[in-house]
This record gives sequence, structure tokens and C-alpha cells, in this order.
Amino acid sequence: MLTHNDGNVRDAERLRYSQYPRYPRNPHYSHIPIFPVIPIIHKNGHTLMPPQEFLKILTATLGARAVVTDPAEIEPWMTDWRGRVHGAAPAMLAPASTEEVAEIVRLAAEHGVPLVPQGGNTGMAAGATPPADGSAILLSMRRMNRIRSLSAENRLAVAEAGVVLATLHDGAHEAGMRFPLTLGARGSCTIGGLTSTNAGGTQVLKFGTMRSLVAGVEAVLPDGSVHNGLSGLKKDNRGYSLDQLLIGAEGTLGVVTAVALRLVPAIAARAVAWAGLESPARALDLLRFLEARTDSIEGFELVPQDSLELVLKHIPNTRAPLSGDHKWHVLVEATAAGPETDVAAELERLLGAALQQGIIGDAVIASSEAQAEAFWKLRDSISEAERAEGQTLAHDISVAVADMPQFISDAAVKVEQAFPGVVASGFGHLGDGNIHFHVRAAGHAAPDWYESEGKAITRFVDDLVTAAGGSISAEHGIGQLKRDELARLAPPARIHALRAIKHALDPLGIMNPGKLVP
Amino acid sequence: MLTHNDGNVRDAERLRYSQYPRYPRNPHYSHIPIFPVIPIIHKNGHTLMPPQEFLKILTATLGARAVVTDPAEIEPWMTDWRGRVHGAAPAMLAPASTEEVAEIVRLAAEHGVPLVPQGGNTGMAAGATPPADGSAILLSMRRMNRIRSLSAENRLAVAEAGVVLATLHDGAHEAGMRFPLTLGARGSCTIGGLTSTNAGGTQVLKFGTMRSLVAGVEAVLPDGSVHNGLSGLKKDNRGYSLDQLLIGAEGTLGVVTAVALRLVPAIAARAVAWAGLESPARALDLLRFLEARTDSIEGFELVPQDSLELVLKHIPNTRAPLSGDHKWHVLVEATAAGPETDVAAELERLLGAALQQGIIGDAVIASSEAQAEAFWKLRDSISEAERAEGQTLAHDISVAVADMPQFISDAAVKVEQAFPGVVASGFGHLGDGNIHFHVRAAGHAAPDWYESEGKAITRFVDDLVTAAGGSISAEHGIGQLKRDELARLAPPARIHALRAIKHALDPLGIMNPGKLVP
Repeated sequence: MLTHNDGNVRDAERLRYSQYPRYPRNPHYSHIPIFPVIPIIHKNGHTLMPPQEFLKILTATLGARAVVTDPAEIEPWMTDWRGRVHGAAPAMLAPASTEEVAEIVRLAAEHGVPLVPQGGNTGMAAGATPPADGSAILLSMRRMNRIRSLSAENRLAVAEAGVVLATLHDGAHEAGMRFPLTLGARGSCTIGGLTSTNAGGTQVLKFGTMRSLVAGVEAVLPDGSVHNGLSGLKKDNRGYSLDQLLIGAEGTLGVVTAVALRLVPAIAARAVAWAGLESPARALDLLRFLEARTDSIEGFELVPQDSLELVLKHIPNTRAPLSGDHKWHVLVEATAAGPETDVAAELERLLGAALQQGIIGDAVIASSEAQAEAFWKLRDSISEAERAEGQTLAHDISVAVADMPQFISDAAVKVEQAFPGVVASGFGHLGDGNIHFHVRAAGHAAPDWYESEGKAITRFVDDLVTAAGGSISAEHGIGQLKRDELARLAPPARIHALRAIKHALDPLGIMNPGKLVP
Repeated sequence: MLTHNDGNVRDAERLRYSQYPRYPRNPHYSHIPIFPVIPIIHKNGHTLMPPQEFLKILTATLGARAVVTDPAEIEPWMTDWRGRVHGAAPAMLAPASTEEVAEIVRLAAEHGVPLVPQGGNTGMAAGATPPADGSAILLSMRRMNRIRSLSAENRLAVAEAGVVLATLHDGAHEAGMRFPLTLGARGSCTIGGLTSTNAGGTQVLKFGTMRSLVAGVEAVLPDGSVHNGLSGLKKDNRGYSLDQLLIGAEGTLGVVTAVALRLVPAIAARAVAWAGLESPARALDLLRFLEARTDSIEGFELVPQDSLELVLKHIPNTRAPLSGDHKWHVLVEATAAGPETDVAAELERLLGAALQQGIIGDAVIASSEAQAEAFWKLRDSISEAERAEGQTLAHDISVAVADMPQFISDAAVKVEQAFPGVVASGFGHLGDGNIHFHVRAAGHAAPDWYESEGKAITRFVDDLVTAAGGSISAEHGIGQLKRDELARLAPPARIHALRAIKHALDPLGIMNPGKLVP
């Protein structure tokens, strides 16, 4: 919005602060030092304790169970979920309590040893994969897997970082409640990872991302102190929200050890429908039509015909929900907390009206829970089907909801023109303005397509998204895979602020180095 | 949770870092420097431009309209809402655009001149009152009063910082929508101030504080750059959330210039009831009883008999809603967005059931909008009535919702025992775990009671709250009035983190100095 004139910066001042190389000066603030930068101890010739000696101290302090050094045990956690990035670490720490995490971080700070926190290792941006040079130690949170409390009356659960999402779902269900956030990796992903990446998923439309569902965070800060935000206070205005800062920080500002989570009443009934329609614009019309008439819509997923065909081709036991031809599809899920609402009848009535108004071409309501699951399977299998078809680039992007239909059409055309032979399409969370914009290589693409043309395509897509005022990471985070693109595309003032905050809270750079902060 | 042994800190290291006096070392992190502190320019003998010269530059850049120096025009904004704190400033700046704010901040940074942002000047913690020594300039945001956009379809409004809350209410209403947050000062308070203090109010129970309602923040950061978070993206995981950091930062990390706000459908119907009951515990029982049976409850305010009597005594045209004697009262507001719900009939039925179960002693539903407003007037006039009765100390505190009934009883007894003659009582947002715990001086109290016994009472109350795991500022913020208490009671690691963040983003200390950060 503003253009500042940097021409009057005095050379003497330029010189004076040129000793701080790591954090480039903010162009808007060039006349004064933002902050001097302390050299990262382990990278600047300060004493770095040899890993083996550090591990001996850890073992003496925490016991052997918490310090895993057998390469066979460590190896499965060294590669990211998508198999793109391979790391190395001399050890995997497995603390069982917040106290143990604090002790680990305190010792790591003392000896300048970087830590890489990891939950279920299901991230999409390699944010939990250690650097390849073995300079960091993996901090696995999976042994911290207790649900500390779960109260239907207070609508609150406190889960440790290593609790698997599906386990929390089950725990809430037993108490007649529900933790509404869910996603494909629910059987593996953990509460700590979900919080640290501000995860989204398929029910964001109604319940928001993790940021909306987290009532408080307990974390070990980079100095080994414990931030306890689990008080359960609904209102607390005692200064900057460290909870909010830790949500989505990807472990770069501390290690999330436990999270207080909001619960909602269990679902009494759900209805799942599949509708065929002409375009993403009609899909958005349908969403607006439904939302104006009911509060029960909580899932609304866009699926292009191309993606559906791939699923039917590659995934066993799948069939098309509708008989006719449709260019686009949506999966609609409606739920009700009370038994008084016949949610299936309501959805059927509303879809009937949408059909009459020409918003949709056809629709079917799942007649059983099994059929509902079959509809969801079509949606959830798209990535798998694409991988079976060939090399596919995934882009997790968002633009303003109202702009998304146009963006999907325009971007697909532009990408396919600029890179002949590729197939581009968007699917997913239309109601959140968030789609997964995937680009599939031509059948004859070389094995190194990801590294060669792939990077150029991603830059092309990211440029389109940025020009549209959107985000190059809607729900997957930055990790290490998107860090260069963030550095390339974020405003300088934002990059400066991210670095300043990182440096303020983790001056030694020991928390998940090389992730998120450009 | 952790106790660290500081005994082994080496004396040489102590010595090495003793040169950084302003930010005490974090006891958990004593072996390494957290960050060296740059001296605040204007306080350490660096060149500080004389105010008159600085104002000349500003006037030349922005024009005379934006630089108010007439003491008569400035004076009304120099005293805080509660009349406790008096400040001084050589000028009041009145920018009309984000560009002008950015220019002001850039110049202030260049010349080391502190700024104190102010909206409606209705804060309860003197967070917008300049220091008394005239060392800072007031930055009034009231001329930035445009609603930039308001879309019923997108359920979003973008309002500039100086928009008065009531104006936004009206704007949303005209579009068939509603901005649900409201509070007593709605005719004066501004969107920028509400955001910067993470304001609460009477509808938090259903819609949350400002933090839940802010979809994005535009702000000028302390270096004069503009952070633009108004994109309207529902999902965006590109690093730490500056929006969330600015919410509740009380202008200490930048100047909020505009805010994207979530709207909800307009109310089709509301019902307001008044119930008499035995105790705060019964009040919480009633809330749980209602919430288990309906989603329509959005206001639930606790009123002690003592407070009601003061209102009836001092506020004209008020009468008790119920005829019998009740020790406690609650005001219940239920709303429905659609016309299909007869919300008054539902509330009447539910209160009838609560009466039968012995949860309440009596209840009455307002039979007209005028009567509903009369009920609200009883609640909203408590502070005014108390002031009319005599000197009163206000404490805006929170504890976990489930703990609040016991806390109210225990704390009142303890305060009245420790300070004979005073009357203590709590009223307000029971469903949020947030009450205003007021202590009224004995009739014979000296005029300097606030300064003499008052401070000791506040410390006593704050100790009780802290021991109960609660917050000494639930919704009013820290400002300058609670800063010493925050410093006294917050964990060292938290104080350290607040200072580190403040210093990282505002190294010159020009943004609202002396507020919030201990």
C-alpha cells in the first residue's frame, strides 16, 4: 500500500548495521537497527557439544527409554509423509511428560543443540523432518498420549501433544460429545501437530480451523520454561496471546505439550449428499443457497469430473453416485445435534429446490451410513488416485471465497497453456476458499519432472495465487517445502516481523531450525 | 510446573550479561543471553527532536488538519474514561487514512517520538492515556471512520479503526445482518480500540470476544510498514499470525487502522427474562440447564441483591422485576435468527421447568421491548449506582466457569474480613467465568481511600484470583493501571516473552510506551 523512499538512508548507518547479516534490514525501517542478531551458537564456531556426549547427559537425566539411538527405530521417522524429504538425526528423544520435555529443551539450549519436534509425521510440508546433515535431534511427542481430562459439562478436553486425533474423537464420543475437526490422517496425526500447523480439514466450514477450537496451549518455550495456557479461562486479557502465537508456529517457537480443546455436542444425525453441477460458480451458488436456509451444513467439498474419473479408475470398490454426466460435483454433509431435526429430509428438500432453480443438475442423498462413507471415500481418495495415475504436484491454496470459482477456471487454463500436456484441477474446501490445486504431469513426463518442470509450475501457480490476494499455504503450513516461496512472495515487512518474533523467542535457533521462517 | 536450580549459574556469565539492565534475565535461561537490548532512543541521551520541530515536519507532510495543537481541543482526551489518570501531550494527530498513519509512524520512528493511539477513549485500564510528562504525542484514530465494505453474502464488514461500534451495529442492521459484540460504551468506543483490547461485553457467551469476531487486521507496524490482513481469507497458514498478535496488544505493537469483522444473521426475535435465585451456584445450574436444552441463550448476567438495591436507590425510573426477596438475580437473553422459533415461548417453558426443579425461585419474561430494555438498564447501571453510593474499586477478573460460584462467595467473605467495613460483591458475565468484583468503601472512608486502602484491597483480590488460577484482567486489558500487578503476579517466563516480543517488533519503544508490557 505504501511506497517508502529509501534514498535518504545515510551511508554511515548502512555501514554501522551491516554487521548483522542474518536478518536483512527492513527497507521500511532502514535508518535504525531493528535488533542486533546473536550468532546462532552451534553454527558460528561456539562450543558445540558432540552429539554423543549430549546424548549421554540426556540419558543420565531422563533414562534410556526416552533416548532412542537405534538407527532402525529412528529411520521410519526420518522421511516426510509425502516421501519427498529425507532427514537424519543421531537420536530420537521420546519424553513422557511436560517435565521431561522441559528438561530436554533446557539442556538443548544450554548445549546449543537444535530439536525437531514431531507428532504423527503426517504433515504435508515436511515441517517435522530433521535436516539431512544430522545436526538436529528428533523430539518425538508420541509417548505424551494421555487425555488429561474431558468434560461434557465444560465442553472441554485437555489432550497431550501425542494424542492421536482418532483417539480424541473416540474419547469425546464416549462422553456424548464431539471434537469436530477431522481430516484424512486422523488415525495417525496428533493433537500437537494439528495445533502447531493450525490444521484445517473437512469440517472447517462450520467449526473453523484448529485456531477456533483451541482453548489453550501448554508448551515448553525455547528457554526450557513452561507456558501454561490450560487454565480454561474463557476471557483473559493479560497481554499478547502466546497461545495464538504457538498455534501454527510449526514448533519454531517452542514445543506444544498439551492443548485444551473445545468440544461440541455429539451428532444425533447426519446426511450426506452428492450433487452434479455445471461449474464451481454453481457450486458456490449452491452453498450460499443452503447456508441461507439452514445452519446444518458442515461439509461442502468440490470435486471435478476429472478427479472423480481417476478415483473410479484406480480405487477399488468405487462407483459414481450419479448416472448422468456432470462437469463438477459437490459432496454436502449436513448434521444435527438434536434428534428433533430430520436433517436428511431437510437436505433433500433444499436440494430439490436447488434443482428446480437450476443451480444443480442432479443430486442423491446417501440412503445409509455405508453409502455416506462411500461418498466420502470418493472425495478422500482423490490424492491417492492421482498418484496412481502419475506424477502430481499439489498446491494447498486459498483465495477469498467469492473469488474461488473464477480462480479455479482461470488458473487451470493458464497453467495448461503455459505447460503443455499437464492437467490442472482444483478440488476440496470451496466453502473455505481453500482448494487443493493439483497439476498432473503429462503421461510421458520424465522421472525428474518434480525437480525440473515441477518447480516452475509451482512458482507459476504461487504467482497466480499471490496476484489474486490469496495464500500459498491455506492449511498445510510452510514447513521446509514452501519456505523459499514464502521468502519470494511475502511482503518484506511480514518477513521481517516473522524473523523478529522468531529471534526474540528463540535467539539460539534451536527450535525446529530451517522451518517456516524465511 | 518446573523448578529450575539457578545455583550453578556461573558468576562470569552473570557478569557478562549484567550490561542489559532493562529486561531482567529469565531465571530459566540464565546461562545465555536472551537478547541484548538497544537503548530506547528518546530515553538514553540520543538525539531527540524537540516536539515543536517534529510537529512542523508533520504539519508540512500531513497538513494542518491532521495536527491539532490547540490545548483546548486536546484536553478532553488527556484523561481516561474512569477519570483516574491524567496525561499530557504537545499535540493530537488526527490522520484520515492508513497512508497518513504510516507516514506518522515512520516519522515518529525516525525521530524517536513515542505515539499513544486512542479510539473512543472508553478503556477501563487507561491504556490510551498519554504519560503525564508530555513525552508522547496522542494519535487519535477517530477521523478514520469509514465502513469500507459490508457484505451480507460474505458475512463480513471491513471497518476502519475509528468507526464507532454503534455505527457498525447500524450498518450491519441495514444490511439485514448483525455484529454481535456489544457493551455499555457502544456509542463511543471504536473498532480499533475494541480490537486492540480484545474487548468482551455482554454477548461473549455465544459469540466470543473480539478475537473470535476479527477476520483480519490492517495495522501500521512500529517501523511504518503496513500489515494488511484484510484479505478475507478463511484459511491462511503462512507463519505466525500477526493479526492475533495485534488483537489485545493495546497499541504496543502497532496501530490498528482497519479490521475485517465477522457478521451474523440479524436477530428475528429476542426474549429477555429476569430470574431470582439463591446463589451463584444456582445461577450456574440454570445456565447449564438452559444450554443443554437450547442454542438460543446469548446473554446471561449475574446480579446480586445488593447491586440491584443500589440501582433502585440511585437510578431514576427503575423498579425491581420480581416482587419477592431473592439473594441473587440473573438476566437471561435468548435470541433467534429465524422467525420459525418462538424464542419467548421457549424461554418461558424452560424457566418454568427450572422453577419446578428448584433451580430458581421466580422468573419473569419481559412482555415488551421496552421492558426488555428496562431489565438491561438494571444490569448496565450497576457501576453508575455504585459510584453514586460511594467510592468503589472495580476488579475485572475471571476464573474457570465451574469455579466462579465458589470464588464469588469465598472472595467476598475474605475481603470483608480483611478490610472491615467494605462491601464486596461480584456481578456480570457468569457464563464466561468473568465477573466484575467490586469493593465499596465504608461510608466513612477517607477521600484518599483509593490510594490508601484501595491498593491493598486490589492486591488482596488479585492474589485470590491468581491463587484460583484466574486472570486479573478478563476483558479490560492491562493498560497502565494493571501493569504493576501483572509484573508482580505473572510467571517470569511469561513476562520475559512479552518483553521479548515487544522489543522485537518495537525496538525503539515508540508504540504506546508504558502500557501493557511489565
